[in-house]
Amino acid sequence: MRVLGVDPGLTRCGVGVVEGVPGRACTLVEYTVVRSDPDADLAHRLLNLDVALTEMVARHRPDAVAVERVFSQHNVRTVMGTAQASAVAILAGARAGLPVQTYTPSEVKAAVTGSGSADKAQVTAMVTRLLKLDAPPRPADAADALALAICHVWRGGTRSRLAAAAAAVTGGRGGRL
Amino acid sequence: MRVLGVDPGLTRCGVGVVEGVPGRACTLVEYTVVRSDPDADLAHRLLNLDVALTEMVARHRPDAVAVERVFSQHNVRTVMGTAQASAVAILAGARAGLPVQTYTPSEVKAAVTGSGSADKAQVTAMVTRLLKLDAPPRPADAADALALAICHVWRGGTRSRLAAAAAAVTGGRGGRL
Repeated sequence: MRVLGVDPGLTRCGVGVVEGVPGRACTLVEYTVVRSDPDADLAHRLLNLDVALTEMVARHRPDAVAVERVFSQHNVRTVMGTAQASAVAILAGARAGLPVQTYTPSEVKAAVTGSGSADKAQVTAMVTRLLKLDAPPRPADAADALALAICHVWRGGTRSRLAAAAAAVTGGRGGRL
Repeated sequence: MRVLGVDPGLTRCGVGVVEGVPGRACTLVEYTVVRSDPDADLAHRLLNLDVALTEMVARHRPDAVAVERVFSQHNVRTVMGTAQASAVAILAGARAGLPVQTYTPSEVKAAVTGSGSADKAQVTAMVTRLLKLDAPPRPADAADALALAICHVWRGGTRSRLAAAAAAVTGGRGGRL
């Protein structure tokens, strides 16, 4: 299966695409970082991210999208932008009819390093080794996005439940007054 | 000018469309509340909201979209969903090429009631009177969305700056590694 992972952020959003099957080595398809100017208009920044992610989804046709779950215990000012970027990422997958799964940072770290409390350097080192890359993916946002994608491939068993949820979306419309 | 106002929320998202010119009475075009099940999958909820807002924008062809600005001082758990819903609303306007403006709750309250610290009942009462409605819009999320739209009409002077920002969007794409 091919998975597109997203480490959401407004200023830097990591995106990584890998291919593989549970329990086997994954291969790198592409990684990138979508950037936007912190001083730019918010609508501009969200649209910029939406265009870039929608294009990645259309070009790579992944089987699923994995997005890091945003927590509120982080810096409160940053977290608002991260939450908005994660919404754009989740929508990019959902609009393409793909199952979208969120993972906590600990789940991702545990999946690729064996420890839920691994630091960024360990995650980057393991991603580099697991994908047999010549050099570590830079910046760290890209490595995190690849780790998310690997995590989802290896936990591929959750797939059918998600596909069912995605299929249910077509029926759900908002109520009207 | 016709403005679509959005009071963002994942469980209940108020949407209100009004028409008017600065300094004159506005008229109601439509209001609605988009709801989603708090127990549903997040991707499902965001997509549901995206579909509903995109449809409203396409049907009413507003000149601008006004969205309530999300603050971090609210309940931290709720604020994540509100931030994500606001991203969906901002994107729905930006994808249609419309200028999108955010307003703080105080700005909206001040615009429709004359006081930045007015309570929800006062906002609802003023919206009902300003739009010459037979009954108050229910629930309060719908009244807040209409207040946002009225606020934007009356502050129409900010329009040209926004239109310029929206036009600039077409040139801005994310950087690539």
